[in-house]
Amino acid sequence: MKSVGIAGASGYMGGEALRVLLRHPEVKLAWASSRTPGPAEAVHPDLCGASVELIHPDDATPCDVVFLASLPTAVAAAAARHWLAGDARVIDLGAAFRLHDRATWERVYGEPHPAWDLAGEAVYGVPELHRDEIARARLIANPGCFSSAAILGLAPLLRAGWIDPAHVVVDGLSGSAGMGAEPSRVAHHAELGGNLIPYHAVAHRHTFEMEQELSALAGKPVRVCFTPVYVPIVRGILDLCHVFPTAPRSRAELLALYREFYAEAPFVHVWDQPVASDSSWRHEPYPWVSAVAGTNQCQIGIDVDRERGCIVILSVLDSLGKGGAQVGVENMNLMLGVPRQAGL
Amino acid sequence: MKSVGIAGASGYMGGEALRVLLRHPEVKLAWASSRTPGPAEAVHPDLCGASVELIHPDDATPCDVVFLASLPTAVAAAAARHWLAGDARVIDLGAAFRLHDRATWERVYGEPHPAWDLAGEAVYGVPELHRDEIARARLIANPGCFSSAAILGLAPLLRAGWIDPAHVVVDGLSGSAGMGAEPSRVAHHAELGGNLIPYHAVAHRHTFEMEQELSALAGKPVRVCFTPVYVPIVRGILDLCHVFPTAPRSRAELLALYREFYAEAPFVHVWDQPVASDSSWRHEPYPWVSAVAGTNQCQIGIDVDRERGCIVILSVLDSLGKGGAQVGVENMNLMLGVPRQAGL
Amino acid sequence: MKSVGIAGASGYMGGEALRVLLRHPEVKLAWASSRTPGPAEAVHPDLCGASVELIHPDDATPCDVVFLASLPTAVAAAAARHWLAGDARVIDLGAAFRLHDRATWERVYGEPHPAWDLAGEAVYGVPELHRDEIARARLIANPGCFSSAAILGLAPLLRAGWIDPAHVVVDGLSGSAGMGAEPSRVAHHAELGGNLIPYHAVAHRHTFEMEQELSALAGKPVRVCFTPVYVPIVRGILDLCHVFPTAPRSRAELLALYREFYAEAPFVHVWDQPVASDSSWRHEPYPWVSAVAGTNQCQIGIDVDRERGCIVILSVLDSLGKGGAQVGVENMNLMLGVPRQAGL
Amino acid sequence: MKSVGIAGASGYMGGEALRVLLRHPEVKLAWASSRTPGPAEAVHPDLCGASVELIHPDDATPCDVVFLASLPTAVAAAAARHWLAGDARVIDLGAAFRLHDRATWERVYGEPHPAWDLAGEAVYGVPELHRDEIARARLIANPGCFSSAAILGLAPLLRAGWIDPAHVVVDGLSGSAGMGAEPSRVAHHAELGGNLIPYHAVAHRHTFEMEQELSALAGKPVRVCFTPVYVPIVRGILDLCHVFPTAPRSRAELLALYREFYAEAPFVHVWDQPVASDSSWRHEPYPWVSAVAGTNQCQIGIDVDRERGCIVILSVLDSLGKGGAQVGVENMNLMLGVPRQAGL
Repeated sequence: MKSVGIAGASGYMGGEALRVLLRHPEVKLAWASSRTPGPAEAVHPDLCGASVELIHPDDATPCDVVFLASLPTAVAAAAARHWLAGDARVIDLGAAFRLHDRATWERVYGEPHPAWDLAGEAVYGVPELHRDEIARARLIANPGCFSSAAILGLAPLLRAGWIDPAHVVVDGLSGSAGMGAEPSRVAHHAELGGNLIPYHAVAHRHTFEMEQELSALAGKPVRVCFTPVYVPIVRGILDLCHVFPTAPRSRAELLALYREFYAEAPFVHVWDQPVASDSSWRHEPYPWVSAVAGTNQCQIGIDVDRERGCIVILSVLDSLGKGGAQVGVENMNLMLGVPRQAGL
Repeated sequence: MKSVGIAGASGYMGGEALRVLLRHPEVKLAWASSRTPGPAEAVHPDLCGASVELIHPDDATPCDVVFLASLPTAVAAAAARHWLAGDARVIDLGAAFRLHDRATWERVYGEPHPAWDLAGEAVYGVPELHRDEIARARLIANPGCFSSAAILGLAPLLRAGWIDPAHVVVDGLSGSAGMGAEPSRVAHHAELGGNLIPYHAVAHRHTFEMEQELSALAGKPVRVCFTPVYVPIVRGILDLCHVFPTAPRSRAELLALYREFYAEAPFVHVWDQPVASDSSWRHEPYPWVSAVAGTNQCQIGIDVDRERGCIVILSVLDSLGKGGAQVGVENMNLMLGVPRQAGL
Repeated sequence: MKSVGIAGASGYMGGEALRVLLRHPEVKLAWASSRTPGPAEAVHPDLCGASVELIHPDDATPCDVVFLASLPTAVAAAAARHWLAGDARVIDLGAAFRLHDRATWERVYGEPHPAWDLAGEAVYGVPELHRDEIARARLIANPGCFSSAAILGLAPLLRAGWIDPAHVVVDGLSGSAGMGAEPSRVAHHAELGGNLIPYHAVAHRHTFEMEQELSALAGKPVRVCFTPVYVPIVRGILDLCHVFPTAPRSRAELLALYREFYAEAPFVHVWDQPVASDSSWRHEPYPWVSAVAGTNQCQIGIDVDRERGCIVILSVLDSLGKGGAQVGVENMNLMLGVPRQAGL
Repeated sequence: MKSVGIAGASGYMGGEALRVLLRHPEVKLAWASSRTPGPAEAVHPDLCGASVELIHPDDATPCDVVFLASLPTAVAAAAARHWLAGDARVIDLGAAFRLHDRATWERVYGEPHPAWDLAGEAVYGVPELHRDEIARARLIANPGCFSSAAILGLAPLLRAGWIDPAHVVVDGLSGSAGMGAEPSRVAHHAELGGNLIPYHAVAHRHTFEMEQELSALAGKPVRVCFTPVYVPIVRGILDLCHVFPTAPRSRAELLALYREFYAEAPFVHVWDQPVASDSSWRHEPYPWVSAVAGTNQCQIGIDVDRERGCIVILSVLDSLGKGGAQVGVENMNLMLGVPRQAGL
């Protein structure tokens, strides 16, 4: 059985990795580290009774796979180099290796990249797009949460060339877990409770991941106008996408396109059935973010406004699940050749 | 002092009208009616101690202004005809008279209109656009909540002709008070709590109000791709708008345009100052919906993505306030010639 | 492999049973029924892709265990009789069989009991108190959610005879899932959001379950002053108990008592470690309800006020989990002789 | 017109004082200060358009009344001494002067008191108990939020001598605004959202205020077992009190006692009417915290369990309103001899 370590296990992303790996049937947790060592349940109370001790990073031992969770870029880069040198495979849950273009990375993150040679070999970890490269990779750049939802939601349309690549609008609604454990005003309950907080309304960092992946699928430049808003839920993201078809398309055509694109994707579900019920309790064929909280699922809904020539795509996932640590475990499963759904 | 009545005072919209009119210095509340008469505080607990009794609609007496709150269209139409015949002025907080095109109204609401002659004389109650007509009107069609936010947010751009009228995207995030007091699955706490519920993702009824008013401002057809989402807050709406300028515009130009457009609007505030603070508590110059909850304010934020050729407009208000009963009181003030801000 | 059916699977309690039993390794789901048949995912969106069809109750077939979820008493009684006659074992998640005293039941529920002979043989399903009887039972009365939390929280003290049985105060804070899927004003998001709603502040039905079980443990009458409050979370309950020791007790003595009482209880955890951390992020050794949401765990915290002669017990669980459907599955596991933690 | 200053106006308590004093008809705001000067709307976005500049504390000028909001004890003590020396009257919204017993204060707050001579003359600011002393006072110790709710809820019973002073149980449920603007783990949205966080379950600081005031009313020592819990709302507190009558009392007797006690209290409302409605929307005669959010009201509900010999008192207020800054303004009104309800 392969051994796995988690660096940065006291944050939300590392905690989720810990939770999933503790019950994973195909790997063994070697260690979980934190700059503030101690019982895991002191920071993750649901691990009460699990008897997991977070160790100091210096005490980490060699293992087969290492997760880097929410580390600062320089720390992540050094850690990646260290563990790769020891023949481990590395899954970075942070942003250090997500962009293929160095100038873009340095402009977006506002610092020189500390290890661009590693960025060159990193594979962007969306299993539905890059399964085979992930299986062979030494280093995975796990995608950003907003990016995952938008890329999964729009990939079929852009690969098919059915939409105008210059008018892609994505509004991303995120729960507070997406901001991490670090205190800030927008993450303070008394500010976010009963509120909606738009954030980096233009040129948010995840925009560039979306454009990178969607442009590659489209074979031409895609421009994504992306605006995130923090909403007073804890877990989950809804990426609400408006795009404009180059020729009229019916909802049935779109459903067929998506079903075919995701035919072999175990963690992407397209809401495609008509939902009929009594009037007051009827709900429309759109996904609910509460249904994917805590899971590795992405659910996608589709609607079409023929009169206005607009397609609406609704894509939901959990920023710590399919948009974070759990898809990291899915990537690990592909790398190790164990069943893709193991532990998920 | 003029006398005012409220029909439908046990719902949320009527309750808000009641709350505001009880403390209004320039008018006297004659009555508030409900199909379920009784002490107002039994349905609006914040009125504890106010000693207001909701009367049966049959017991309503003549008065100078009547608010119709959340009545079914046929009931609202009959009530409007009744009170207008008695020389009252009528403010309909519902949807009976909002559209100028009969065929559109009947298609959108799925029934024959019961009183189209009245619809013909109704004035659409956005004071920033129609102040003088409102002052002279006998019958006001108070606007829908999502519509108010979008129209106020986009009016300056469309009147100026600065944006492409064929690519207007509006995502409307609404609290649950916007759904009213009637139970439904999407309004059930256990469903909406921790969730985000998209709703009529295309061709929602408010779309047609937005298009009517914005097209009139633009002098040509405007198509609005509008998708509402219910979010787990109670009061407030954020309309998040993405539009595409026909020529590059800076944020400063846009702020100047908006400042001028709303120079005399006491209830619309444009967030235009740079906000600087320490990093973790910094917040961007975007409005927060919590700041307008319970008020008759609309706050508007503006951002520009020069690289992608996109303008982002963020418009917030309270669906019962500036998007509902309070703007109804503002309209009443204009009709009665009392100070526009009285009671608000 | 044993077969299991669920009657009432479209409610929250039945949905949770369905969710757990679908992934249970030791039993096979034979059917799940509802008065409104159709795809399960239409009412439980997290079951998207699970391809479960809710059948009409008339189409239910014989199986080894039947769960009755949230059925009205008369329906539950008839169903229990029907399935018991067919040699199934029955776990009633409702209130039909929870009280041992007929007069009390009829007073509390305000109707004649429809099947008192069955009530006589029902075992009250708290595994930590009645494991062996549960294993042998044909009919289980699964406990109320508030009752489970209070009984588990107070059992050690009352069996030990350490507290005054005449002054037991329990405040129960519950999320909205505890009210079920049936709409009501207090369950309406616009009412409960941002609110705290006390409910049946005296003599709530669960009071009598608590008194029945705790009196049996104490060997004398215990009076519980219990007040529930609905709070704006979805899943989880905190029973906050204040009791008065007959002789001074230290926190260490109490922890030792609880540890011993629950030494063999896999689903009850006593928070007993000192938690030290930096000041702003320090948290006290009290359980958090978010940590048990979605699980079959009960976590218990203990504090002592020596100066005032008072013990505080904090007991948290999920009303659909350890306070509902999941403990029902734990009871089923005991009845079938499969591992107690199977599927949980 | 008297002039008023606010020290500490960037916190929640100071912001609420600012909000109320800006629209107060009988006083003039001289200044509002903060260690981080700048536009008030940058920290209180609802003040958008109010054009209020927070000044540096060193720039504060003499005025008639000074509010001290959320200052550390030593700072508050120095500021009180400074302003009193200049003949201003001072209202301290913090905890520096709330306790009459020095040893208790020093034990509870863990530091030597910096200005005990001032504590000696401070009046504890519950207007319903100390109206005349407040009117004459130079220095007001504004009460703690939990304390206000409990004291108002229990005062009538303790003055009447109707309950056992040794068994008083109070559970305080508080929204997050009660924790202030300072970040902490329990105030972080991702921790408190969907959670219930008990906090200092025994011997919380407010306990001692409750005991001081209630003992004085009772004429003998009262012991209060008080446990606070943070709940995921922003504004509002429910103090849920269980007490034991020394002789049986009916609900009618209690209502009469409370009505008489609060006959002249404009801001305390006793919920005393029977509330009847259709079954699903019926609500019981208990106060709702949402109804008092943002106000200076305290609402009190009463229920009696004759069978168990227990009285339940439910007392709600807003920790920034009647439990904080607004009652501070009420105290100011009494001190200045202007109408008690002015500005509230």
